Parts: sequence; structure tokens; C-alpha cells
Amino acid sequence: MTTIKSKEYTPMNPTVWLVGAGPGDPELLTLKAARVLSQAEIVMVDDLVNPEILEHCPQARLIRVGKRGGCRSTPQAFINRLMLRYGRQGKRLVRLKGGDPCIFGRAGEEAQWLRERGVESEIINGITAGLAGATQCGIPLTLRGVSRGVTLVTAHTQDDSELNWQGLAQGGTTLVVYMGVARLQQIQQGLLNGGMPASTPIAMIEQASSPQQRQHTCRLDELCEQAAAFKLQSPAVLVIGEVVAAALESGQLGQLLTEHANTAQILPQAN
Amino acid sequence: MTTIKSKEYTPMNPTVWLVGAGPGDPELLTLKAARVLSQAEIVMVDDLVNPEILEHCPQARLIRVGKRGGCRSTPQAFINRLMLRYGRQGKRLVRLKGGDPCIFGRAGEEAQWLRERGVESEIINGITAGLAGATQCGIPLTLRGVSRGVTLVTAHTQDDSELNWQGLAQGGTTLVVYMGVARLQQIQQGLLNGGMPASTPIAMIEQASSPQQRQHTCRLDELCEQAAAFKLQSPAVLVIGEVVAAALESGQLGQLLTEHANTAQILPQAN
Repeated sequence: MTTIKSKEYTPMNPTVWLVGAGPGDPELLTLKAARVLSQAEIVMVDDLVNPEILEHCPQARLIRVGKRGGCRSTPQAFINRLMLRYGRQGKRLVRLKGGDPCIFGRAGEEAQWLRERGVESEIINGITAGLAGATQCGIPLTLRGVSRGVTLVTAHTQDDSELNWQGLAQGGTTLVVYMGVARLQQIQQGLLNGGMPASTPIAMIEQASSPQQRQHTCRLDELCEQAAAFKLQSPAVLVIGEVVAAALESGQLGQLLTEHANTAQILPQAN
Repeated sequence: MTTIKSKEYTPMNPTVWLVGAGPGDPELLTLKAARVLSQAEIVMVDDLVNPEILEHCPQARLIRVGKRGGCRSTPQAFINRLMLRYGRQGKRLVRLKGGDPCIFGRAGEEAQWLRERGVESEIINGITAGLAGATQCGIPLTLRGVSRGVTLVTAHTQDDSELNWQGLAQGGTTLVVYMGVARLQQIQQGLLNGGMPASTPIAMIEQASSPQQRQHTCRLDELCEQAAAFKLQSPAVLVIGEVVAAALESGQLGQLLTEHANTAQILPQAN
């Protein structure tokens, strides 16, 4: 007991790691994440993590703390308290999240909450789903002469506030929307009202970079009907912008869509 | 010779990999990148790649093809031709780039150029410098209630065209600017003219996630003078937005800055 007490007060020696598991492909895990997992005593694992990732930590006790927007989930307060308890005990704890823990992953909040209570943590980045999904479809998120940048946003909010659609529609960057499946109507209307051309190409990518990945392309003004026809389901990302047309022209995305021709339709010619 | 000829015409069996080496920390390499490097016969390596990464490919022949904006560099056309030659020979070739090959890394262009000539390639994502640098500073690029997204842009262009500063200034996302050191004046003026508040906090991060990482914070309206005083040098990223203030308040960035107190100054209170 004395030992545990003393460990409670060494906050500069982190034993809690907030780790990105990357997207669907388990080989997109970083070496650092694999090492920390292999040393973990306890791993708290999110819903969206590929189970194969857990082969890196056969020695660890697993705690599943799924938390999906809108679904049955483990409350954040419970997750925080659990992390704090094990952190104070000096346990080597990994909190494993899909994608990158700082891109819509709440790692910043969790690290701050722990720090305020004397427990230091370390964040280990991961490949985010939007990037991996686009790459699997042959869509370069930035492309000289077409797109000078990329904007990642989430359509899911705490307070149902609206995004600045006009800024997003006119920013001139490729737009990647996370957690948008339940808010397609708002996304389509927001971008159209914000001034984005109706013919802007969109790729919808389900289960990015996993063997179950499915993809489909359409125009902005037909997003809702096409997503319904395609039966788009979470988790999915939308990649919006002219880089999608570039990928179709170069052939790679077109070929992927043809391979899934039962569900996919090729993007009509832009206006 | 016959064997090589036949391999020339198997474009669906890629032997060229366009691989992200990640940022400064060599442990942020993905497992997939490490595997492909260990199997490579030839590795064409960019300037910004940490040399420790090359320990994964002791068997490979190294070709250095440094290409830094504004500096002495290997022409893109030469790099392309070299990739094509080895690709047609069926060599297992890795083109290794700093960060992620699809975020300002030209992997999309190179893959398309090769595909048009019958050589298929595979892109392997990496952790991009802006993400890793922000994480090392304790800055969450997205934070509920503060920032619903992140925009990555490059300040360096082919044709000296201007970014849509107004869209970027008002998009409501955290802004991460790559390759901005030579264009600080344009960035500062563009964002101020675009309507971004003068008090917006900025973190400048040099050599993100490497042992040589240096960081400094200031307000938007003092970016140029503060960068000069800090002697900011490439490679560096700028992280711009209220998430920087959140990191300062939570203590982690403030502590990092104090540790480098000879060069760093704490951000003044926002207006």
C-alpha cells in the first residue's frame, strides 16, 4: 500500500498513454503504439479499434469502453474516473482509440482532466480515418494546382451548433467530414447555401482502410439520395472537393468503384 | 532480361511504395512502412526523413533525393524517371518522404504519373508533422467547445498564388500552416485582412517531434517580429487558433516554454 501511495505522487512519470490505433488497417499502427501496448498492464479500448490491434497486448487486462455518437455508450465521466484510478495506482494504462486521439478523439480533454488531478499522460498519434480512406481510394487530399490544403471537421456536436458552412464551402481546401452519416441533410444544405458548387464531387468512404471498406461517389446536390441508395452506414467519412474528380480521372477510384459495381455508380460529368 | 521484361508488364503487382516516414520521432513510423522498408531493394529518401528510419532497411541501396522548397534540390522530373525505371524493372522500390506522402507530399502526382506509364504504386500513410508537433506541445487540434476541426495548408506554392485568407480566417477551424517560414509576412497580413482577431494565439513549432523540437507562442499581430526574435527556421509549422490558448492554460505548453526560457516567451493574455 505504501508503494502505491508513493507512486500516486510522481506525476512527472506518466504511466497513462492515450494512443491512436489508426484506421481499419492494423498495420497502420505506429511502432511507438505497438511498443506501449506490449508493455501495458491495462488497455481501455474503444469500439472503433480493429480487434487485431489487441494482438500487441496479450498480457494486458482489456476494458471495453465503447463510445459511439448517438449509440449506447460508456459515459465519459466513468472513463475518466477509471483512468484516474489506474493512473494514481501507477498502472501502465493504455487508452486505445480509433484513428488519431487528437482528431475528434478527445485526447486533449482527457489529458487535461488527468493533469488537473496530478496524473500526467502521453499522447501517441495515429493515422486518422479520413486520410487513410482517401489514400485507399487514390484520392490525394492535397494536390498542386487543385487543392492547397485539407480541412477535417466533425458533423457531430455536443450542442447541435452549426458549423460555419460558408467558411468551409469557400475555403478552397479539400473537406473531410467525420461522423456525418446522421447529418447528411445539414451537410448538403449547409455547403450548397454556403456557396459550394452543386457539381462538387464527393466520395463517401465506409470503414476506411479495413477489408470491409466500401466507397461511392456522387455530386454534392445528390448526396442524400445517393447515400440512401448506397446504404451508407457509420463509421464513414465524406471527402468533398475537386481532388475526388482528379482521382476518378486518374483511374484508381474509378476502378475501385467498378469492382463494387453492384452498389456503386460513377460520378456524372461535372457541369 | 526476359524476366525483367515480363515484370515490366505486370502493373497490377505494385513494387513501388510511396511511404510516409512520419515526423521527427522515428518511432512514429507505421508497422507497414517498417515492413516495406525491410523488404526494399532501393530506397529513395527525402531530406526531411530522420536518418534513424533508415535502420529499417540496411539491405537497401539508398538514393538521396532531397527536395526542399527554395533550396538546392533534385528535380521532380529526375525523381519520376528514376522511379519509373526501377518500377519497370520490377525492383522493390520505396520512395520515402517525411510526414505523410499525401499531405503536401506530392504522392498523388507521383502515383498518377507512374500509373499513366503502366507502373502501379501503393501509398502508405504517415503521421504528418503538424499533428505530431501540436501533440508534443499539448495542443489538441480539435477540442469540443473550442474547435470543431482543423485545416492544414501550405504557404509555399508553385505559382505564388494567394490562399483564400478570408475563408481560412473565418472557417472556425484550427489552422496549421506548413512551409510558412519564408512567407510569414503574407500569412500575418492575409489572416488579419481576412478578419482573424489580432489576438489569436499562434504556436510556431520547429522540427516537430524530434529531439531538436523548439516551440514559441505569440499573437497573430506580432508573428513576424516574434518569429525573428525566436530565429524560427525551416522545417516548421504554425498552429493558429484558440486551442493554443487552451494548451497554455492547461499548463503543458507553458511548461515546455519555460524549459526553453532563453528563447521562449509566454503568450500575453488575449484581448
